[in-house]
Parts: sequence; structure tokens; C-alpha cells
Amino acid sequence: MATAAPPLKDELDIVIPTIRNLDFLEMWRPFFEPYHLIIVQDGDPTKTIKVPEGFDYELYNRNDINKILGPKSSCISFKDSACRCFGYMVSKKKYIFTIDDDCFVAKDPSGQQINALQQHIKNLLCPSTPLFFNTLYDPFREGADFVRGYPFSLREGVPTAVSHGLWMNIPDYDAPTQLVKPLERNTRYVDAVLTIPKGTLFPMCGMNLAFDRDLIGPAMYFGLMGDGQPIGRYDDMWAGWCIKVICDHLGLGVKTGLPYIWHSKASNPFVNLKKEYNGIFWQEEIIPFFQSATLSKDSTSVQKCYIELAKQVREKLGKIDPYFVKLADAMETWIQAWDELNPPKAN
Amino acid sequence: MATAAPPLKDELDIVIPTIRNLDFLEMWRPFFEPYHLIIVQDGDPTKTIKVPEGFDYELYNRNDINKILGPKSSCISFKDSACRCFGYMVSKKKYIFTIDDDCFVAKDPSGQQINALQQHIKNLLCPSTPLFFNTLYDPFREGADFVRGYPFSLREGVPTAVSHGLWMNIPDYDAPTQLVKPLERNTRYVDAVLTIPKGTLFPMCGMNLAFDRDLIGPAMYFGLMGDGQPIGRYDDMWAGWCIKVICDHLGLGVKTGLPYIWHSKASNPFVNLKKEYNGIFWQEEIIPFFQSATLSKDSTSVQKCYIELAKQVREKLGKIDPYFVKLADAMETWIQAWDELNPPKAN
Repeated sequence: MATAAPPLKDELDIVIPTIRNLDFLEMWRPFFEPYHLIIVQDGDPTKTIKVPEGFDYELYNRNDINKILGPKSSCISFKDSACRCFGYMVSKKKYIFTIDDDCFVAKDPSGQQINALQQHIKNLLCPSTPLFFNTLYDPFREGADFVRGYPFSLREGVPTAVSHGLWMNIPDYDAPTQLVKPLERNTRYVDAVLTIPKGTLFPMCGMNLAFDRDLIGPAMYFGLMGDGQPIGRYDDMWAGWCIKVICDHLGLGVKTGLPYIWHSKASNPFVNLKKEYNGIFWQEEIIPFFQSATLSKDSTSVQKCYIELAKQVREKLGKIDPYFVKLADAMETWIQAWDELNPPKAN
Repeated sequence: MATAAPPLKDELDIVIPTIRNLDFLEMWRPFFEPYHLIIVQDGDPTKTIKVPEGFDYELYNRNDINKILGPKSSCISFKDSACRCFGYMVSKKKYIFTIDDDCFVAKDPSGQQINALQQHIKNLLCPSTPLFFNTLYDPFREGADFVRGYPFSLREGVPTAVSHGLWMNIPDYDAPTQLVKPLERNTRYVDAVLTIPKGTLFPMCGMNLAFDRDLIGPAMYFGLMGDGQPIGRYDDMWAGWCIKVICDHLGLGVKTGLPYIWHSKASNPFVNLKKEYNGIFWQEEIIPFFQSATLSKDSTSVQKCYIELAKQVREKLGKIDPYFVKLADAMETWIQAWDELNPPKAN
């Protein structure tokens, strides 16, 4: 399945938040074996994850995170898959692909196994078109183009920072929808990749996600979730809102659609409801905040944008709950830690 | 193929700009026969279009248009399919479906004939979601829903005003792309309907289009094209830019995607280039104009919005070419004619 020269072999890391299920790695072996894995263990550091032979990997548990970041480790969530963003920070590669351990290889309508990583790479290497909608979807795809009426000056597109993949089988629903529709499965394979237009927010799911670390890495912070926090299951959503505002500001693109993975099991809706209920309430104010957020001209780097956004979070969302003040602090700590581990390259 | 009780039988008109090819009506017979057709002949009024038996139709040629609208007929294009918008004006129905005579019944991947009209009706009767992107596409479709992170307060959606369908086989390309890719065919069936987000413009093609006349009809003006005009093939594009700005202002939705029709033949790219070249040049200024256009709070009806937009066209686009002053005048004439033929209903 893996080709002789896998694309971006030395430029991409795969980040996985804990692996509870070793079938996961076996199933992905032909696709993942050529790449380097970064596994970030979300729970008890005394438990050891056994990675099967043949994989090139590094593994971090809570003790490692504390040791590497010192007091700044407070910005990394504990007992929650949000800890995965530590992997983005320690990676030294240009591209990241992150996937959950309950996501398996899906099949396309012809029955072929889908090489999700390869499709993400295609998405990332090809420009996005956030400034005008193309009705035939991705204009750069073989057999497609820009349609009549698409301004020629916009056809160059912009660099793609994020590729958001989808899920066959168990859809990514919130707890209330899970409870209402326990049997719903996603069986529709939509053969499209599209750019999310500038100015439009979307719910970014971290199950099957790739991004250009050089372009947007410092904004891919998954927030404070899990142990000791009043909210869970909003880690990827938080990152999605932040990266979208920053990509729009910096002229970068975000794509969604292909590739699909096979999401094998639904998480417990009752547990999810407990994690989500504050988020479900708070998002009614968070979304308008991000929809109207603007960044200043001085914010010319992802780091500067993120720090500016953190300030706005403190000021405007701090009124909802003290959690957002803590989150704003953590956003700043995250950037400090990022810059410490990723010192600016000498030119 | 047609069901015993076709949906919206007494509430929908099919508007066709000239029929050169009688196979067209025969192929669509099972789908169109239950509905009323309005045929607007674009060229020489002495030529007669023979409509096969069994269809319920009315036919208008240039003489009829002149007689009905008098001096206001100047707003209706001559020798161009843009004349079809006269049909929208004389219809008394809530919904319009418009289709070109070189568009035939397409097949879905299972080989089933696609009932395009039925899918348009589904699209129009179901809300749109322009305020936040749903990654599983249309959340109201069977087997789909709003995904995790979609604000609950936005799940009601907004009324859908426009349903933009796509084309298998010959894609809707501009002349330069036609010239560069003469053999390109659209073979990809993308099984999705999506809402074009608020604030995003799109290239609206009039080949396979449906809309709610009560909600957006007066803005569906196809401009001044064809005989005596410096531009062609921008009739539907012009309407698309105008309706999108007005839908965004009034809180209405625009969908694109399914249904597909089979676009049988490419128009001549050399002839198209002659019609398009001004548009290709002008659209580089027209698009930014529409992207930044805002309407005042006083514009609470489609008519008021359209008149306000006409004024802005005169002021801001009139600088590009005197054509836009003439077009702005025609936009106002169109609204006067519309209101004359469609007097406000007594409540």
C-alpha cells in the first residue's frame, strides 16, 4: 500500500493522543510506518503503552511534559486528549497529521482503502480559495477548474494551512444529538474537498486533522480541558475557532472534506454530556465573539495574532466565567513554551 | 417517473429561455408535464416554437414583451437568454425553476435518472445555514445532522431563497478555460447540498436554478445582455451577485450542489470570448464592489434593497464604463415593471 517514496516522509510527524487499542497501529501500519510518530499519553504516567515493532516513535507522558516544560506545563491538559498539542510543540517537522486511536482506515465507494494521510498532504500542498466560492468545489483537483464568473485575479489562491478530514460510520455529534440519535451512522461519501470561506467559522474536529506547522502551528493550541477543568470536548473546537480567525487575518486557507477515516466507536453520551454542558452554554457567546474578532495590522505572525486573541479572550470572554481568564493565561503560556522549544531560525 | 401528486404542482412555474431542441422537452416530459411552463423566446419573434402536445405552457416573444411592458420593456434583454427573467416577472407562482434547453436528465452513480426539480424543491423547502459551516454538509438531510460544536441557537437555520444546481458532462467554464481545456468533462458526482456562507459570493449559473419568487424574485434580474450591449454571459452572474448581497442582508439562504443535470453541449468558445471579454475585465472591479456592498436598515424588502443596490451600481461602477449607468437605470425600470405586474397583495 505504501509507495516506494512516501510523500513528505521527512517533513511530517503523526501525533496521536494515547493508544488504547493496538489494532489501531496494525491497521494503519502500511500507511504510517514510513513516518515518525509522536504519542502523547493523556493519563496515568505509570502505565506503559506498548508500541508494536517497526514503528519509529517517541512517547511522552505527563512526567516528560512536566520535565520539558517546567512550570509552563500548566498549559497542557491532563487526562484529556487535548494533551496532544504538546506533540505539535515538540515536533520539528513542517507538517502534522493527528488522529484518534478509534479511527481506522475507511473505504471509498469502490471498496479501496483510503490513504487518509496522502489526501491530507494533497490538500495541504495545494492552494485554498477562501475569497470566492467555486461551485465545482476544489478547482485544483483533476477534472475540475474555476467556473465561469470566478475572478481571474483570485485564481492563484492562498497557501493552505489546515486540512480537516471527515468520518464515516460514527459521526462527530455532541452529547444531546448522540442521545437523540444513538443509531445514526454516516454512510454518505461526499467526494469533495472545499475551502471554508473567509469570515466563516466551522467546527473543527481533531479526530482526523492535518496542518502546516510552519504556517499555523502556534495557534493549534487545544486549550485547558480534562482534569481540574470545567469543560471537555471543546479542545479541537477552541483551536478551530482560533486558527480560523488567524488564517483569515493572515491570508491562509482552511479546507474540509476528504479524506474520510472510519470512526469505530461512539464515546459515552452521558459522560460526554457532563464534559460538554458548560461548552454548549458558553459557545452561544463564544461564537459571536470569534465571528466579530478582528486582529490589528501589527499582528503579522501567528504568535502575535495568538497573543492578541488571548487578550481579547481575557477581556471579553472573562465576563462569562473565570475559566476564560485562566484559559487566556494558558494561551500566553503556550506561546512562551512554543517559542522556547522552537527558537526563531537564524536567517 | 412522475409521482401521483407532484410536489408544489400549483406553486411552481418552469421558465425556459427558448427551446431550440424539442428532444429537450421529450426527455423531461415525465418530470415537467405536471407543471406549467413559461417559455421566453430570445430571438426573432416571427419564428414559432412548436411545443409538443401534453405540456401546459405560455410562450412570450419580443412582441409580447413590448406589448406587456411598453417602454419598460427596455430592461429586458433581446437576443440573449437573459430575457428569461421576463418569465419570472409574469409568473404568479411562489417558486420558479429555470433550465436551459441544452440540459438533459442526468443519472446518479447508481444509474437512476435524477429528478432535478424534486431535489430543488427539497432544497427550497428546507432551511439554510449561512451563519456557521456544518462539516457534514446539509444538516437537515436524512442521515446527517449538525456536528459537535455547532451552536444550538443557529440550528433553526434561515429560509432558503435560492437552490443552485450543478452540471455533469460539460462544466460551466468561461471562454479562456474552454479554450485551454476543450476536452474537460465533469464526471464527478458530489453527493452534497451546502449553504453558501453569509458574506461569501459565488458564481451563480442560470442553467439549472430554482428560487422562491416570494422571497427573492424582484432581485432575480438578469441584466442587459445580448443585442446592443457590450457584454454577454454575465446575466446569471450579475443576478447571483445581487441576490447574494440581498439574501445576506435579509437573512435568507442560498444553497448549491445537488441536483445535477446533464449539460449536453459546450457553446462556442470563440463566440463566448467575444461576449465575455469585457466582463472578464470588469469583474475584477465588480466583485470587490459586491464584496464590500452593504445595505441600510431601511431596506427591509427585496425591492428596497434592489433599488439601493442600483444606486450604488450607478455611483461606484458607473466609473468603470457608462454601461453600468445604463444597467443601474434598467435595474430601477425592472423593479417598476415588477411592481406593476405584481401589485402588493391586500392583507
